[in-house]
Amino acid sequence: MFRHVVLLKWTEDATEEQRAEVARRLGGLPDVIPELRSYQIGPDAGVNQGNFSFGVVADFDSPEDYVVYRDHPAHRAVIDECITPILAARAAVQYVL
Amino acid sequence: MFRHVVLLKWTEDATEEQRAEVARRLGGLPDVIPELRSYQIGPDAGVNQGNFSFGVVADFDSPEDYVVYRDHPAHRAVIDECITPILAARAAVQYVL
Repeated sequence: MFRHVVLLKWTEDATEEQRAEVARRLGGLPDVIPELRSYQIGPDAGVNQGNFSFGVVADFDSPEDYVVYRDHPAHRAVIDECITPILAARAAVQYVL
Repeated sequence: MFRHVVLLKWTEDATEEQRAEVARRLGGLPDVIPELRSYQIGPDAGVNQGNFSFGVVADFDSPEDYVVYRDHPAHRAVIDECITPILAARAAVQYVL
């Protein structure tokens, strides 16, 4: 298995509606990108100070399937329309499970 | 379930030995911290430019169990002895699964 992890930090002026829309739109991706074997996303729980705002952990059969997801038009649309407008910082890693 | 995700970026002068030691030491934590239900770690696979260096995804039964891990002396020892000396950047999120 091949795992993609990305953590996103929202801008201070990001609204609750904008944050919720990211979760809603990303949550629809497994229905249109069958390469996604597991997709677990969620907003930071607020346990620690200084955290990023939102986490995505996505598992694939192979690096090639991850690239299909990365470049899929439905995914790029969520990035362009919902994520980029409120993005303050981003950190990502892909690793072999 | 409650998930802890942390992404770490190493300094440019971090040696291969130092990077491997982080993975080796973290990999021993499930043996001494039974609250860890799942612990999947690994170095970035190099698919994308600009990534962080290392990923950790840890699952717990509860936020309280995550805090046990966070503050456990064996975990703090790995942070102090292996991670902090080569740490350039860190991003973390905890979220409910």
